[in-house]
Amino acid sequence: MKTRAAIAWEPNRPLEIEEIDLEGPKAGEVLVRIVTTSLCHTDMFTLSGRDPEGLFPCVLGHEGVGIVEEIGKGVTSVVPGDHIIPLYTPEDPNCPYIQSGKTNLCQTIRKTQGQGLMPDGTSRFSYKGKMLRHYMGTSTFSEYTVLPEIAVAKINPEAPLSKACVMGCAVPTGIGAVRNTAKVQPGDTVAVFGLGAVGMAVIQGAKLQGAGRIIGIDVNPAKFALAESLGATECLNPNEPPEPLHEVIIDMTNGGVDFSFECVGNVRLMRAALECCHKGWGESIIIGVAGAGEEIATRPFQLVTGRVWRGSAFGGVLGRSELPGMVDEWLSGRFDVDPYITHNMTHDRINTAFDLLHRGEAIRSVIHYQPQETMTGDLPGVTLGDNKKTPEPA
Amino acid sequence: MKTRAAIAWEPNRPLEIEEIDLEGPKAGEVLVRIVTTSLCHTDMFTLSGRDPEGLFPCVLGHEGVGIVEEIGKGVTSVVPGDHIIPLYTPEDPNCPYIQSGKTNLCQTIRKTQGQGLMPDGTSRFSYKGKMLRHYMGTSTFSEYTVLPEIAVAKINPEAPLSKACVMGCAVPTGIGAVRNTAKVQPGDTVAVFGLGAVGMAVIQGAKLQGAGRIIGIDVNPAKFALAESLGATECLNPNEPPEPLHEVIIDMTNGGVDFSFECVGNVRLMRAALECCHKGWGESIIIGVAGAGEEIATRPFQLVTGRVWRGSAFGGVLGRSELPGMVDEWLSGRFDVDPYITHNMTHDRINTAFDLLHRGEAIRSVIHYQPQETMTGDLPGVTLGDNKKTPEPA
Repeated sequence: MKTRAAIAWEPNRPLEIEEIDLEGPKAGEVLVRIVTTSLCHTDMFTLSGRDPEGLFPCVLGHEGVGIVEEIGKGVTSVVPGDHIIPLYTPEDPNCPYIQSGKTNLCQTIRKTQGQGLMPDGTSRFSYKGKMLRHYMGTSTFSEYTVLPEIAVAKINPEAPLSKACVMGCAVPTGIGAVRNTAKVQPGDTVAVFGLGAVGMAVIQGAKLQGAGRIIGIDVNPAKFALAESLGATECLNPNEPPEPLHEVIIDMTNGGVDFSFECVGNVRLMRAALECCHKGWGESIIIGVAGAGEEIATRPFQLVTGRVWRGSAFGGVLGRSELPGMVDEWLSGRFDVDPYITHNMTHDRINTAFDLLHRGEAIRSVIHYQPQETMTGDLPGVTLGDNKKTPEPA
Repeated sequence: MKTRAAIAWEPNRPLEIEEIDLEGPKAGEVLVRIVTTSLCHTDMFTLSGRDPEGLFPCVLGHEGVGIVEEIGKGVTSVVPGDHIIPLYTPEDPNCPYIQSGKTNLCQTIRKTQGQGLMPDGTSRFSYKGKMLRHYMGTSTFSEYTVLPEIAVAKINPEAPLSKACVMGCAVPTGIGAVRNTAKVQPGDTVAVFGLGAVGMAVIQGAKLQGAGRIIGIDVNPAKFALAESLGATECLNPNEPPEPLHEVIIDMTNGGVDFSFECVGNVRLMRAALECCHKGWGESIIIGVAGAGEEIATRPFQLVTGRVWRGSAFGGVLGRSELPGMVDEWLSGRFDVDPYITHNMTHDRINTAFDLLHRGEAIRSVIHYQPQETMTGDLPGVTLGDNKKTPEPA
């Protein structure tokens, strides 16, 4: 079949929207129509060429929501019409990692997914006979995409498809890191490095857990108002204080924070995030993705005196068994996803979405494949019939 | 009063045994007669000049056992005659760190202890009018020493003083790191980097916890027999395998170990210890003390994919409330300390003990201040009336 997709031909080149060829689902696979997708820094990171796993040409996109259109042989857990979120961290109950109960890092299709291929080692995407690679096993920048059954989470059909895409990465990554990885407790002091969508979700998660102080940190003070509306009790611009950032935070918090989260992917910030933790028990969680070959460093004394350094991927969330419950939490009003969505636009304007993200103007831009279906007046960042809210970059 | 002590005048100079002056205990302090003391790599490390906190001249020694001789004003928890272990990690119930219940790193006298002084900012030791500094708040290389009340753990008087000194550091540090810091579970796979006394105690602790595989690693294969007798299921010489050490261990263990322990203080080994951990859940615990200014490094991806980096000091053991129970465990036969004691000698041969440790020939040399009192025929490494078992270095 044919589908509209934004092709990343090579690093640092704007995406090109084309009608491409898509093979139908093979055994154990599912054809999905993506209804909305949002842009994450990881897409931008791969497009920049700094991602060691980036392979081109490919169809980017990993934060989306869609509807099952067709199922391949042997698929039993979803049927056409089901609303699903594509999972770049799949969940195969037969994977020993999943069976361990200690991690969400399913390894079943890790190898082929890293190669930009489906589990059988081939791609479903092509353009004029030339293979296009999948990306993170999801490729949500194509209106139709094929996913392994273990990489789709069936969600409540009442979740608005106009917004549910942000439940595909940012929100569960941030809230999950707080709950599953850090296990923040009521009254804890938390520092959040980087106020993009993931950092905002960490703040939201920390507030849900009852954290006492939540310190947001970003070089862009324009992010502070939103961070504070989500639960940050104070915000810091690391370019402002004269002393080293970790010392400023240690002073502010009478010895350091209970938990810090690095949501940028900057190895120097990762060090500051560790070293601002409280001696004896503070834990720092790395969420951001660093550039190829970059390393973190610290004096081992930091750890011997009780600090803990860990990381979190997809918030430690089991995609199929836990993400649907998080969607229900959203629907029940436990948290709101509207604040993340600063822009809404049509698929043909996807490069504008990249520009907005790059310039720090967007938290999340949501791309609507069928705007008449989902771009309604009650969406944040858009007025009915008008997607001009999004300024074109100069 | 006068006491015999081994003085460290400056880095890299053999200790000199002299009769020095000791002031009696002030308020909240205790005068202790050290009966035996053993030598730990940390003493050697400080004497080498690589310890950033090392201050000279001083009286080294932090692994000992003794008897309370006199108590200062206000001391209520011990009386003369009590058997005690000096604590370089004290336990003050009024310290907020101790009250947190999250750490054993009492801060009450941290500052003065780091300066080699008693809590009032002065030293009790002097030689011909010149101040000698305390070391780690313990200075067990002096037959008589003064300790803050919060830095003595009262132990079962039935514990043989000829051996109990090793309960002052090595044994609780290793067993505690396994139980309190790592929380090793039955069936877990464990790698132990460095087979000195602490590494041996980690092995013993891992066996007590029911670990399934325990891999001992040391460049000195002479340590392997003892490691295996304590519970190591296999031993590795990192100079032998052609591939990088962490890859060898990952191959041996089908993906990596559940827990690794670095007991050397080598930052390259600390990295290998982290990177040989199992993706998704493996945790590495740093116990060894690295040289001044040395740093650990790794790719953040190691943490994002589920490995955890932590450290442990004094095994996370609360000295006053938990160490006495560990002594009782030893007395009840749950574990044995004899294997640690490879040599016994009199105080005047303390430089021999340093040489033996430096050459990797000793696990622990026990120094007996009053050999007629404690050097009996049932001691490991000694025959009654004969301390010649210890060869003099060439």
